[in-house]
Amino acid sequence: MSVQTFELLILGSSAATPTANRNPTAQLLNIAERFFLIDCGEGTQMQMRKYKARFQNVNHIFISHLHGDHFYGLPGFLASMHLLGRKNELTIYGPKELEEIIHIIHKHSDTYLNYPLKFIYTQNSTKQLVYEDDKVEVYSLPLKHRIATTGYLFKEKPLPRNIDKYKLEKLNVSFAEIHKLKQGMDAIDNNGNTIKNRDLTMDPPNPRSYAFCSDTKFFEELANDIKDVDLLYHESTFLEEMKDRAKQTFHSTAKQAAQIAMLSNAKKLLLGHFSARYGNLDEFLEESKNIFLNTELAIEGSQFSL
Amino acid sequence: MSVQTFELLILGSSAATPTANRNPTAQLLNIAERFFLIDCGEGTQMQMRKYKARFQNVNHIFISHLHGDHFYGLPGFLASMHLLGRKNELTIYGPKELEEIIHIIHKHSDTYLNYPLKFIYTQNSTKQLVYEDDKVEVYSLPLKHRIATTGYLFKEKPLPRNIDKYKLEKLNVSFAEIHKLKQGMDAIDNNGNTIKNRDLTMDPPNPRSYAFCSDTKFFEELANDIKDVDLLYHESTFLEEMKDRAKQTFHSTAKQAAQIAMLSNAKKLLLGHFSARYGNLDEFLEESKNIFLNTELAIEGSQFSL
Repeated sequence: MSVQTFELLILGSSAATPTANRNPTAQLLNIAERFFLIDCGEGTQMQMRKYKARFQNVNHIFISHLHGDHFYGLPGFLASMHLLGRKNELTIYGPKELEEIIHIIHKHSDTYLNYPLKFIYTQNSTKQLVYEDDKVEVYSLPLKHRIATTGYLFKEKPLPRNIDKYKLEKLNVSFAEIHKLKQGMDAIDNNGNTIKNRDLTMDPPNPRSYAFCSDTKFFEELANDIKDVDLLYHESTFLEEMKDRAKQTFHSTAKQAAQIAMLSNAKKLLLGHFSARYGNLDEFLEESKNIFLNTELAIEGSQFSL
Repeated sequence: MSVQTFELLILGSSAATPTANRNPTAQLLNIAERFFLIDCGEGTQMQMRKYKARFQNVNHIFISHLHGDHFYGLPGFLASMHLLGRKNELTIYGPKELEEIIHIIHKHSDTYLNYPLKFIYTQNSTKQLVYEDDKVEVYSLPLKHRIATTGYLFKEKPLPRNIDKYKLEKLNVSFAEIHKLKQGMDAIDNNGNTIKNRDLTMDPPNPRSYAFCSDTKFFEELANDIKDVDLLYHESTFLEEMKDRAKQTFHSTAKQAAQIAMLSNAKKLLLGHFSARYGNLDEFLEESKNIFLNTELAIEGSQFSL
């Protein structure tokens, strides 16, 4: 049985100011054909065109905080969706002041979107469920930055049990009874015989999860909120040699990101949000791998599938 | 005698939505080492990096109107200047509502720029001098678009007369008297003899001018405000086959841009602000050249020197 999609595309990896080849933060996550845009730095719509990601697939945009490198691409993205004919509702998750910013921009540019725009305000005091459907749930996570900032945790819901189709074909079972088998219950075939769940089904794949943690200073408690996550993106604006600067600006080093990966028992770590001062990023990888081996760089155009 | 610089760099040529290879409107004009940024669509700072234009050279930004494709790159550009250590005053020319937008964004992102930011409000009822120094003057021009929009006219001031250095070396003339010669007056040498201006000086190059006209519907009166301009940029969002759509959306066709070039007696025409529906732009050039031969496309990275 084919597993549902769980794929992350990196659109921007730069902190604060973009460089010649690094864009500000944006990521596109596809879980079971739900397309979640995570942060929307300047140029996100151009990056989506570059990597052939379809705008109109995105119905939910998650903004971590209101520093410009995380949302200055949002007004242009909203406008382009409108101009390209969008009609479907779009929901933005983020600090409530974002709504005022978008409102003022639309007011002065005489813009009336052709689609409904909904805001869900985030708060950064506790972990909170902000989105849920039949297959996915999304939580906001408190981070510690200079202004109110939330990370996001994207989780598959438990998948139904896999049925052995070869065995099923030989039996005479109604759709309603097949549904019960998928949920882990026993079933009764059309002849009245009980079918033991364990005889016909196999364990489904474990639900997968992705945590987005940017921007934040290092704090151990974060690990509790993302325990056992499959894929962890944690900002690493600096190398450890600049840990004082990281602390002062409420950012993290590659080493600290690796420590959070260890503490949370993550399976894989992605580093990103690199300061423009760094040209070569190999040292980030090296510094992190000393502590947490399964690390990769989340650079523009890279894709990670679970 | 070397003439002072007069050079235009195109950073974006797209209307409304960017395409895979066209960015929204932005241009960088260098007159005598004054760097004027004209409009600032999303991604302008990345385009400037791409074409190796130095951010901090820009002291004046001219915004035509508040449709997103003409200013959504401004907040990011202002932030990057700050992060890169700018201290010098920066002046923004544009509709007064722009100041409120920038103010709200800075307020909610807890941003305090390290340099003074000044706003000069434009109005679009009459042509108006908005900037002047010893070498250059800039006028705002009323355009006709869906919201208040101004074009800009950049003009060199008359250059001083060129002195024949070979002849001057043989005479004994003070600096004060040389200054009078450059201004077109006669002078007196240190022996008390009158030097006729026409004997020692040559006509300077004619002052050069550049007009930026975007966005606007076709209206003949515009030609009066830009009479005899050397270089005219006029928007051509559509081809003539879509002239109804152009009229309806307060935009122009390539043919109409050429008509304005003819009516204003411009020396050269640049076309830009192309609708995303057009892949190949050759037809724009062709349509315009049928009326006004000296036409070029203002596409990303192209440079025009006067």
